[in-house]
Amino acid sequence: MTEHLVLREDIGTVARLTLNAPASLNALSDAMLAALKARLTELAGDPAVRVVLLAGAGRAFCAGHDLKEMQAGRAAPDKGAAYFADLFARCAEVMQMIPALPQPVIAEVHGIATAAGCQLVASCDMAVAAEGTRFGVNGVNIGLFCSTPMVALTRNVPRKQAFEMLTTGAFIGAEEAQRIGLVNRVAAPADLPESALALARTVAGKLGAAVRIGKRAFYDQIALPLEDAYDLAGAVMVENMLWRDTEEGISAFLDKRAPDWA
Amino acid sequence: MTEHLVLREDIGTVARLTLNAPASLNALSDAMLAALKARLTELAGDPAVRVVLLAGAGRAFCAGHDLKEMQAGRAAPDKGAAYFADLFARCAEVMQMIPALPQPVIAEVHGIATAAGCQLVASCDMAVAAEGTRFGVNGVNIGLFCSTPMVALTRNVPRKQAFEMLTTGAFIGAEEAQRIGLVNRVAAPADLPESALALARTVAGKLGAAVRIGKRAFYDQIALPLEDAYDLAGAVMVENMLWRDTEEGISAFLDKRAPDWA
Amino acid sequence: MTEHLVLREDIGTVARLTLNAPASLNALSDAMLAALKARLTELAGDPAVRVVLLAGAGRAFCAGHDLKEMQAGRAAPDKGAAYFADLFARCAEVMQMIPALPQPVIAEVHGIATAAGCQLVASCDMAVAAEGTRFGVNGVNIGLFCSTPMVALTRNVPRKQAFEMLTTGAFIGAEEAQRIGLVNRVAAPADLPESALALARTVAGKLGAAVRIGKRAFYDQIALPLEDAYDLAGAVMVENMLWRDTEEGISAFLDKRAPDWA
Repeated sequence: MTEHLVLREDIGTVARLTLNAPASLNALSDAMLAALKARLTELAGDPAVRVVLLAGAGRAFCAGHDLKEMQAGRAAPDKGAAYFADLFARCAEVMQMIPALPQPVIAEVHGIATAAGCQLVASCDMAVAAEGTRFGVNGVNIGLFCSTPMVALTRNVPRKQAFEMLTTGAFIGAEEAQRIGLVNRVAAPADLPESALALARTVAGKLGAAVRIGKRAFYDQIALPLEDAYDLAGAVMVENMLWRDTEEGISAFLDKRAPDWA
Repeated sequence: MTEHLVLREDIGTVARLTLNAPASLNALSDAMLAALKARLTELAGDPAVRVVLLAGAGRAFCAGHDLKEMQAGRAAPDKGAAYFADLFARCAEVMQMIPALPQPVIAEVHGIATAAGCQLVASCDMAVAAEGTRFGVNGVNIGLFCSTPMVALTRNVPRKQAFEMLTTGAFIGAEEAQRIGLVNRVAAPADLPESALALARTVAGKLGAAVRIGKRAFYDQIALPLEDAYDLAGAVMVENMLWRDTEEGISAFLDKRAPDWA
Repeated sequence: MTEHLVLREDIGTVARLTLNAPASLNALSDAMLAALKARLTELAGDPAVRVVLLAGAGRAFCAGHDLKEMQAGRAAPDKGAAYFADLFARCAEVMQMIPALPQPVIAEVHGIATAAGCQLVASCDMAVAAEGTRFGVNGVNIGLFCSTPMVALTRNVPRKQAFEMLTTGAFIGAEEAQRIGLVNRVAAPADLPESALALARTVAGKLGAAVRIGKRAFYDQIALPLEDAYDLAGAVMVENMLWRDTEEGISAFLDKRAPDWA
């Protein structure tokens, strides 16, 4: 019943999700988080989808949490404590579903990406942004430090740059976001959907199983000690090598022909 | 009795510390380390201070350890072993007091920042540098590898760039320091104090409690596994949400008015 | 008997290794891995060598694994499972010998550095690349995700940039490799050997023992919690301070004269 909040359009093997509450700048309300969780759960079980795009309808990608809804939570006898704990747990769960999703997820960002909206960009595997997009973790401006967005942000950009964004609440532009590691590519606003889709199609054109096993290994190994990371990645390489389609892919390369992949 | 070694000037809620031994290029002598520790201890307990600036008097920000004093330590029966161990422990303690300080600390850097002086920049939460500043971890040039400065440096900049600085002993300029993550902003020399103070004032203008809880969470979560980091940050967000001033900050934002903060 | 596969030339205290199978673009065959392991073992025990350069003969630095040899491994009853496991273990062992080597290792890269060849660049302590060099972890193009190269790559460059290289299989140029942290310096093709050698000689001109103890500490401390990293680095500094040559190096600096080092 929340399907309209996150639209899904399939373009070949690319699924494009669109946050669709433009009047609230696609705020991550309880309903929006539930809708996004439902879509991600749906995609996790859909082998026909190879890459996911995540965009926002209207003027902005996503402006973060739904502040009116949060203030309403204070009416409870505990002043909202239980509601807030549950809300941040649900939000963190959705954010962590993105790196855990079998398919790569590419943020397609325009307008603004602030607070939990910036966290959403940082949580995606890749991001393409329109020129003129403004990124910020600016909760500090209203007295609410962006502590959970910080978790994703500090795993994308250097420390001092993250600290400045978090404590000044200032916006950075798309080019600066690219420079510090938050964004992969910057496109003219009119070219954004095409640019993001081109990146998605490039990845969707690879052997799907290889991309999936690789994405999982990417996050599994990234914080391990070097030797443990190599043990994990080596086991993944062996498994990958034993697939019929990988044998065919290598043969085709050696024979200078296109692979015959199902 | 070492108060003159680190001057303190309060500019509203910003405390500006100045390393004040210009004849030694503000070397981190035993007395200087004690004075800096005393000032940081004093600031940690001063709720009126919201942001700290750390600058150097004279021609340089800081040229690192006091080499004459270190050589004198060799006169002991153990050739200085116990003194050196104590010295590096005291220095590391002071360096670690900076991320542990409740308030953000901004390095205001000019001239040179070398060895433990460069470590001091890397240990600060943010840094503003004058054009023309030279940064180096150049102990290797005199046979003393900058192993302790390396700890702070490698938590700011990429590996290969850190390795090059450490093994070549070469200087980098302010722009390169900014490019690799060691510095946030670069200012014309004449504008440095104003530029650093503007950044400090921006942060000091936020809700102090939010900045404090956020800074602590920043370093607490940064090396945790993703799920643990979210658990920690989620708990911080809940606490932050329950403050009266945060309720007011969000209400004011929704009402498009300035918050009424004490 | 595999000595011809990795040539060694000593230029003063710099040892220059050259991968020498140009017909296969210096593929990391079983024999090449054995030869490289033998050379690294030899250098680890050679106190006369202070810095190692690693280059490739012919048109490329290194194009990764030997795909023909890998496909031949499938003839075994287990379809190659045991061979592949052993191959990736041997390859990971050689890659890990580079940060573990007492001497700094500088990649001197031209042409292409792909898959395990890109991993080799990422595994080196520093890298100098010729303009026009193309870097890629492009196994995904043939159905074999670069999971082991990813281990080294993600310890050099930011997450989103690494993810894009791994899942698109696209090349990046030398300037982009420098921008994201994979390369230290870029030189005109004709100047590459000279530029890499100049960097090597700069490092070789430092006190060798200091560089060695520093390199070991670099990797030992890099993933430790801050306090543990300082404990380790502090102990290294004390040991370094007690050397005769370091006492002399500091004295010489204070006396404004050249150090008298053996």
